[in-house]
Amino acid sequence: MKARPDSVRRTRDLLRAAVLRGDFVDGILPGERELVGSYSVSRGIVREVLTLLRDEGLIARTQGVGTHVVAPTAHRRLEDIQGIAELKSGNHFNGRLLLTSFESTVISAPAAASRALEVETGTPCLRVDYAAGTISGDVDAAATNYVLFPEAQRLIDTPFVVDWYAYLSSAGVKIGGSDFTVSAVLSDETLASVLRTTEGAPLLLLEQTIRDMSGRVFNYAIAHARPDRLRVVSHSARGAATFDRTAVPERGERPNRIQ
Amino acid sequence: MKARPDSVRRTRDLLRAAVLRGDFVDGILPGERELVGSYSVSRGIVREVLTLLRDEGLIARTQGVGTHVVAPTAHRRLEDIQGIAELKSGNHFNGRLLLTSFESTVISAPAAASRALEVETGTPCLRVDYAAGTISGDVDAAATNYVLFPEAQRLIDTPFVVDWYAYLSSAGVKIGGSDFTVSAVLSDETLASVLRTTEGAPLLLLEQTIRDMSGRVFNYAIAHARPDRLRVVSHSARGAATFDRTAVPERGERPNRIQ
Repeated sequence: MKARPDSVRRTRDLLRAAVLRGDFVDGILPGERELVGSYSVSRGIVREVLTLLRDEGLIARTQGVGTHVVAPTAHRRLEDIQGIAELKSGNHFNGRLLLTSFESTVISAPAAASRALEVETGTPCLRVDYAAGTISGDVDAAATNYVLFPEAQRLIDTPFVVDWYAYLSSAGVKIGGSDFTVSAVLSDETLASVLRTTEGAPLLLLEQTIRDMSGRVFNYAIAHARPDRLRVVSHSARGAATFDRTAVPERGERPNRIQ
Repeated sequence: MKARPDSVRRTRDLLRAAVLRGDFVDGILPGERELVGSYSVSRGIVREVLTLLRDEGLIARTQGVGTHVVAPTAHRRLEDIQGIAELKSGNHFNGRLLLTSFESTVISAPAAASRALEVETGTPCLRVDYAAGTISGDVDAAATNYVLFPEAQRLIDTPFVVDWYAYLSSAGVKIGGSDFTVSAVLSDETLASVLRTTEGAPLLLLEQTIRDMSGRVFNYAIAHARPDRLRVVSHSARGAATFDRTAVPERGERPNRIQ
């Protein structure tokens, strides 16, 4: 690898991380001269990196404001999106999520869903397709759930709640555990339209199976999320470590952090 | 949304999940007629979906073999890539990983790295860039690590081990905890060349901070991984659930699963 592309890549990766993490007060990026100093790279590289992040749709330049972050990125704890944290105040997202589409149908489980659900292909299940975003009008994620009976019947009988775990909970369905797989995929035309992004944009691909208290899988889901709107965060401590995370100093302003 | 694009999207999502999960014995997909039956869609939709997955580089058609999975996808437990599982037999990946590039330099911490490391910008740190793949010659992931002193000195004094946690461990560096963020991003030319994929391909973007036993952050990393080669899996049980995961029946053949 040549030196220059590597400097561009590393600086872009770092500045992208800072943008997504919400490092910048009021979402305003420092000027080019300051970035040259704080990243120890040439002005040419700073400009190239800013262009790359603009092309990704993460930052924009507005007359009189300067270079700023386009929209805040929410950070969701893995425990929350995995549904294993205890529900607090009824809803993980405190009503921040807004449903943009919803469709629910009883179908015969297709092959890959039945495999994940550990049942025969063709077993009846409820397919629930929905897309949800923030109150601000953004669409963060679209999900297709495949739910076995009898849980499916309880969901049919219960008004939909956009937070899936609140929905399961209000339908009286208890969660024993959850397996989660994270991947990345390109947005096609359909997903781009649902998520209000562009075709070919990168998306987080989240796959999940949810088990009841006896360990039986009753819910399989495939979800797509915009990485510029939602990031998955996991905190872990190892064996003997006993430090208190709350004692770790918080890093300055975090305007983007909606945890 | 029209009905047809949704059927294509759902069937593609399910079949992609089955491919990545390693559902198919010897990686051979069923014939079109069987897929029509097991996904309850028309032959036209099955063909469209197979074309989409071929375009993604996940499957290929070979004369005399039929439609088959291009390469197995490894599944890594989040606990492992987060470094919080206990090291077993010296190395999580049992020597399956092969180093394809390595570069290590002492630098002044750039802004976003210093923020993540909770130190002043310009604090000396060791930057370690490496790319690693499987013995088969694939390149799975490329990572840039920023490590503070004194840990950095111990790493400088220790031969590199491609499994980062084995490297830290052989340098006598203990891990107290780890914060992990997962996102998705497009491959640029440089990353495409390192990861032997195409420009514009989707990549998993993994960001991590590692803490020592006292809670101090000493390691910040940004890594990119090919989603067709590596998936991150998280298993969780909720509060009172006590079912034994080992009692859950395993699903058939899992040729792709390298856990």
